[in-house]
Amino acid sequence: MKFFEYTDEKTLVQELKRPTYDHSKIEKIVQPILDKVKRGGDQAVRKFALEYDHVELDDLWVDQDMLIRAEDEVKIELKDAIKQAKKNITKFHKAQHQEPLEMEVMKGVNCARRSIPIQKVGLYIPGGTAPLFSTVLMLGVPAQLAGCKEIILATPTNKYGEVNPVVLYTANLLGIHKILKVGGAQAIAAMAYGTETATKVDKIFGPGNQYVTAAKQIVSRDTVAIDMPAGPSEVMVVADETTNPDFAAMDLLSQAEHGVDSQAILVSKSRKSILAIEASVNRLVEELPRKAIAKKALEASISVLVKSDDELVKTVNVYGPEHLIFNTEDADSYVDRVVNAGSVFIGPYTPESMGDYASGTNHTLPTNGWANAYSGVSLDSFMKKITYQKITKEGIKALGPVVEHMAEAEQLEAHKQAVTLRLQSLKK
Amino acid sequence: MKFFEYTDEKTLVQELKRPTYDHSKIEKIVQPILDKVKRGGDQAVRKFALEYDHVELDDLWVDQDMLIRAEDEVKIELKDAIKQAKKNITKFHKAQHQEPLEMEVMKGVNCARRSIPIQKVGLYIPGGTAPLFSTVLMLGVPAQLAGCKEIILATPTNKYGEVNPVVLYTANLLGIHKILKVGGAQAIAAMAYGTETATKVDKIFGPGNQYVTAAKQIVSRDTVAIDMPAGPSEVMVVADETTNPDFAAMDLLSQAEHGVDSQAILVSKSRKSILAIEASVNRLVEELPRKAIAKKALEASISVLVKSDDELVKTVNVYGPEHLIFNTEDADSYVDRVVNAGSVFIGPYTPESMGDYASGTNHTLPTNGWANAYSGVSLDSFMKKITYQKITKEGIKALGPVVEHMAEAEQLEAHKQAVTLRLQSLKK
Repeated sequence: MKFFEYTDEKTLVQELKRPTYDHSKIEKIVQPILDKVKRGGDQAVRKFALEYDHVELDDLWVDQDMLIRAEDEVKIELKDAIKQAKKNITKFHKAQHQEPLEMEVMKGVNCARRSIPIQKVGLYIPGGTAPLFSTVLMLGVPAQLAGCKEIILATPTNKYGEVNPVVLYTANLLGIHKILKVGGAQAIAAMAYGTETATKVDKIFGPGNQYVTAAKQIVSRDTVAIDMPAGPSEVMVVADETTNPDFAAMDLLSQAEHGVDSQAILVSKSRKSILAIEASVNRLVEELPRKAIAKKALEASISVLVKSDDELVKTVNVYGPEHLIFNTEDADSYVDRVVNAGSVFIGPYTPESMGDYASGTNHTLPTNGWANAYSGVSLDSFMKKITYQKITKEGIKALGPVVEHMAEAEQLEAHKQAVTLRLQSLKK
Repeated sequence: MKFFEYTDEKTLVQELKRPTYDHSKIEKIVQPILDKVKRGGDQAVRKFALEYDHVELDDLWVDQDMLIRAEDEVKIELKDAIKQAKKNITKFHKAQHQEPLEMEVMKGVNCARRSIPIQKVGLYIPGGTAPLFSTVLMLGVPAQLAGCKEIILATPTNKYGEVNPVVLYTANLLGIHKILKVGGAQAIAAMAYGTETATKVDKIFGPGNQYVTAAKQIVSRDTVAIDMPAGPSEVMVVADETTNPDFAAMDLLSQAEHGVDSQAILVSKSRKSILAIEASVNRLVEELPRKAIAKKALEASISVLVKSDDELVKTVNVYGPEHLIFNTEDADSYVDRVVNAGSVFIGPYTPESMGDYASGTNHTLPTNGWANAYSGVSLDSFMKKITYQKITKEGIKALGPVVEHMAEAEQLEAHKQAVTLRLQSLKK
């Protein structure tokens, strides 16, 4: 890990700058895939599945029998764990439900706002060595709670054309039955444009590799909404001399094991604490199966030594981490001063992995500094709000002249006349 | 106006398809402007203001004396109107405030979610013939209510380097004092990247011409968040035989006068009603100062004749209009079936212009079919939500094993160990 001692804000901003990537090369690869699926539909999807995933798919969709039978292949302890996680995620996301807002703004001028489910959503679940069934929970639970009418889940198969049974079990547990056995940009294209068998969705959610990310970025410009811009995963751990160095080290490592571009940042007022945690990191990394990845990620990671609480809070807010762990004695006193972060983990017994899987909060969070403007995925992400107004004769009599003056000043005559005609009819 | 009689959903989708635009040409013009401002700062901004707005700006920012003196140049009736609109918009947006959510998901597992203001926001207000001071209200009121720490308003000057006094008056009324006297892509770049005098903001809001729109689109990919993707303004008017044809016609015209690419759609079960409204449109358009624009827009506009309530509601939801006016006898019965729309105007005395200016709802709404996934601007747009979790010893004892099972199944060993280390320490 690199070491940085706080001097001033400008240097801090420079030191904590994330690497930037040139997406244009990836976009040039992805754009033709999108175009071909847009024109060629299922046939094109099948062709790309063969080309990239080396699998011949007769049916692009998971068979319903297979979906039900997946349960038999999952260990009972894991099923129970998934059910408990589902219960917690459901409880916390259900509480995010917003009642309709209705008010008489002035006599006869009634305004309202209601949350309406986004009708059709697509959930992308990456494949690869580790099946991310936890992401099925994090996206599927709020989609179902929101009341989305159509939910498509897309995920790649192995070379035998099989989807991981834990992913299938979790989807089925949530009542998600439309499972597209396709990954990559071709899956994003199928959901964004629609094909003979895939409905065009309104919004696409979920993580993915650089091709998936680029495809989501491109289709979000003019075709469908997406959950949020993507970037490598991040954690910032704040520690002091009360912090158990092994706890803090393993939290940094659980970020570092995600990928070589994952960012793990340690912040402390105590040099002693930083040295102890770095020693733990160097010892514990050796025990990890993914130690090669973790070590590579650690090379770009940083320890930041600060002198005061102000500098500490500044460091947090300048960086705006996806995950922020306060493993310090006086954690609560800092928490109120955090303005930029995705999710905050407070105290020694709250490692990030608790939130990644089962505390109830969502693990789809803003990375790459987007926490300064974006929220993580929540029930809201699967809904949009429509406003309503209903004005009575009395209401337009009182407020109409206000609108006439303003429309006139903006030189929008028809806007004014739409009110004037109505006011005149009421004088008759 | 074109005429279309509903036959089936597929044809409807085809008929209501919005025109698509190729943005690549505009992006090629805008990209170098963004790059130059990013590198050259204020000096580059000044250069582009001279080149495009033909104005030499010594100071890029509105003088504070000028800001206060603007009040003298605004008529008292207009000031009163703006104050009333501000009052209504404030009332409706203040009611959107969400209390923090706090819950014990299970014994010892405490989760919370709070809304935090986005710290730094930029509001873009177009210039041109008509000063859009109403947009200052629609963006400035929620920005102040949210508690954004820094608010920059950017708007172009006339060729004498002056900002419209009504825009200045409205900004000052809201307590917005940092006013960048610059428009176009260069204004977006200044707020997105920051300059010597402009703070880099976290999110940019507001309408604009095609250059502004393209600039917002580009910077939103990797630099700042934006309010929503932009498109031409739209209204859909639903009418029946009880509808006053002049009312409906003027509502269609108040959309058509916005720009030649504005969309105005009329839907009715009654052919008689459609014919009467079209006759009113043709008569009333002649009286408008912006009749040339309105007539051009009407050429692309459509009247849709439907046979049933089901077809009517289908037409609304397939199109997903920015503004939806139900000027019919049984308006309320339809409203509950609307799932895709920006804002809904109910009954004969609720023209769109009431909401455009003063009813209290926001007029920054999703266009171009984005209403199927996006909400209009609201208090939420100026805030993001952070989640929190705090787990006790008891909590991790109960939930830790769940996380261990799940992390193991996802092959993320450090995620598991972060829990295991803590559980082991509690056994000692």
